[in-house]
Amino acid sequence: MENFRFLSPTEIIFGRGTENQVGEQVRKYAQKVLFHYGGGSIKRTGLYARVMASLAQQGIEIVELGGVQPNPRLSLVREGIELCRREGITFILAIGGGSVIDSAKAIGVGVPYDGDVWDFYAGKAVPQATIPVGVVLTIAAAGSEASKSSVITNEDGWFKRGINYDVIRPVFAIMNPELTFTLPPYQTACGVADIMAHVMERYFSPTPDIELLDRLCEATLKAVISSAYRVMDNPADYNARAQIMRAGTIAHNDLLSTGRIGDWASHQMEHEISAMYDLAHGAGLAIIFPAWMKYVYKQHLDRFVQFANRVWDVEVNFAHPEVTALEGIRRLERFFTDIGLPTRLSHADIGSEHLDEMAAKCRMTNGDSVGQLVKLTRRDVLEIYKLAL
Amino acid sequence: MENFRFLSPTEIIFGRGTENQVGEQVRKYAQKVLFHYGGGSIKRTGLYARVMASLAQQGIEIVELGGVQPNPRLSLVREGIELCRREGITFILAIGGGSVIDSAKAIGVGVPYDGDVWDFYAGKAVPQATIPVGVVLTIAAAGSEASKSSVITNEDGWFKRGINYDVIRPVFAIMNPELTFTLPPYQTACGVADIMAHVMERYFSPTPDIELLDRLCEATLKAVISSAYRVMDNPADYNARAQIMRAGTIAHNDLLSTGRIGDWASHQMEHEISAMYDLAHGAGLAIIFPAWMKYVYKQHLDRFVQFANRVWDVEVNFAHPEVTALEGIRRLERFFTDIGLPTRLSHADIGSEHLDEMAAKCRMTNGDSVGQLVKLTRRDVLEIYKLAL
Repeated sequence: MENFRFLSPTEIIFGRGTENQVGEQVRKYAQKVLFHYGGGSIKRTGLYARVMASLAQQGIEIVELGGVQPNPRLSLVREGIELCRREGITFILAIGGGSVIDSAKAIGVGVPYDGDVWDFYAGKAVPQATIPVGVVLTIAAAGSEASKSSVITNEDGWFKRGINYDVIRPVFAIMNPELTFTLPPYQTACGVADIMAHVMERYFSPTPDIELLDRLCEATLKAVISSAYRVMDNPADYNARAQIMRAGTIAHNDLLSTGRIGDWASHQMEHEISAMYDLAHGAGLAIIFPAWMKYVYKQHLDRFVQFANRVWDVEVNFAHPEVTALEGIRRLERFFTDIGLPTRLSHADIGSEHLDEMAAKCRMTNGDSVGQLVKLTRRDVLEIYKLAL
Repeated sequence: MENFRFLSPTEIIFGRGTENQVGEQVRKYAQKVLFHYGGGSIKRTGLYARVMASLAQQGIEIVELGGVQPNPRLSLVREGIELCRREGITFILAIGGGSVIDSAKAIGVGVPYDGDVWDFYAGKAVPQATIPVGVVLTIAAAGSEASKSSVITNEDGWFKRGINYDVIRPVFAIMNPELTFTLPPYQTACGVADIMAHVMERYFSPTPDIELLDRLCEATLKAVISSAYRVMDNPADYNARAQIMRAGTIAHNDLLSTGRIGDWASHQMEHEISAMYDLAHGAGLAIIFPAWMKYVYKQHLDRFVQFANRVWDVEVNFAHPEVTALEGIRRLERFFTDIGLPTRLSHADIGSEHLDEMAAKCRMTNGDSVGQLVKLTRRDVLEIYKLAL
């Protein structure tokens, strides 16, 4: 087991009606907030009105900044930073899913920084401070509500880049599973794929001999899989929605990587797909993860056999373990298909035109390679894109 | 799933050599500390000297208070409170296991409180503030390094009582699994039983339909069981020690009870055993838990069948599920026996003399009953003590 430091201080306020506590929570930090959100869905569902009422009840002054898009854009982040500075705002309330929260985190670290906020995402500077971010979560997916991650897309070149620093973990996350009842099935499915990918990036680790972490990952995956089938049948199944939402946080607050190295190649490869085609991140992951698995499984056969056996209940074929491993990958693909996700680029109408460009742009996080279970060169990345066609 | 609030802000600093970071950590909070510990073992192992050196390097002033005993005593807590007040100390560094940390937490809440600290444990007052507590952990067991619990024994009547408040969660926990290599096997085993009991109190919950929590509990139990066998064979097995230590924190920081009610009857019943006989808490739990299970399993057969099947790999006997449930309990007892723990009061040379008194003293946390899966009356508690003979 590797040495580690783990800090997950986000206060989780979970359950029915908890969004009505938002005013009380915010008041602990500020009297004036940036109310950051995406499109009109929070207005249609009445969430916007409920949050506004709770804030008003506590006498909190509100400055609004809506319009966050999936794959949140740098231009809006810059606008938010200017707005906070101009208005003297010291707290950001993010109402939405991962895109809104990631955008809020970027604004948060941008406000007290003298340079351009993209410096952090380009790896040229490390954020030392932030104005605090609180969350009312509306989508179970990115885990951004308690994570140290933020991913932003720079429209100038369509570069999608992430940062990972403890300083950006939100101070609280209000999570009412009922808020996810009205999500379209496709968006629910994309969230499920994102959650599973966060777990799998940590599960497919080169660090040996951590049964505890393996089993916690397997536990989370199994519960997400069975809950996903339930919500596809009944979108208002509270307990199933609640488990997916809770799993989403655990999947990405680093609990499941304490003491071991994650892989993260699939996330890097996916970022190039969704930056190029504006595909939902979860859909991109459902395409790239099986392709990555097929490319690397022979080099760590035991791990893929364990995955097949413990997560997918595939009986181990001791004479031909590779048959077991492949069946595990097949079941993952079948599950993604069952919940309505693409598992090939062609399913999302993506052809081979830009594969070279995507491989050329893919961030080589180890300098000349990406990933940890298997260190992939740019050539490997291109082969995996081709496998995903 | 029940609504919940979850806050686990303790910074975990985990791995080889991390005790040498203690000075740096403490310096973030104070320049003068109460150095709180138990007996001479930390001096024999050299830990005392290393911690002192790290504190000295940061110029931190130290006031010592050793002598914490297992089942930590109220008298020493009162002494610590006086000492902190007299010396103007605003930070407590606990070097040890659950007893030392629980004692430090009690001192912490006692210092800023006008009344007698026992008021909190007697349920007459709620702590509003504490001076912060930091930890260097030497025993994987109680999970006190990140929990909101503290259990203290009042020598005046030998009452053992616990409190549970977020305010007492330590600010950091330094955890080096190597520090546990030299523990006697019996103490290691008692720690394992304590960790498993913390998980099982949460697992045997009346809240239905939370597969995610069930599976996380089962994952933790399985990893602890296999790691326990490893450390019994090889006390210096780093990865096995590390998993037990990591599991000890997860088992009791409330992660595994988010969204559901725990039982806690076994803990209350055990407290009376260890308060009366000064038996190690973990040994008492290894005695009382199987007895409790045998007394209640018929009322929640499904849950005990699941426990047998998923934790102990017992094949489900669908025609006679009670056979499966009983086999699960038997395997738990066998495991405790394998690692050298008593599973009957008689194994610890305890007879029936005080059972009535213990049942009379046992805290009825629901007013007239204790426990949640099954609400036990005093008569039930007495029957369980008798079953444990």
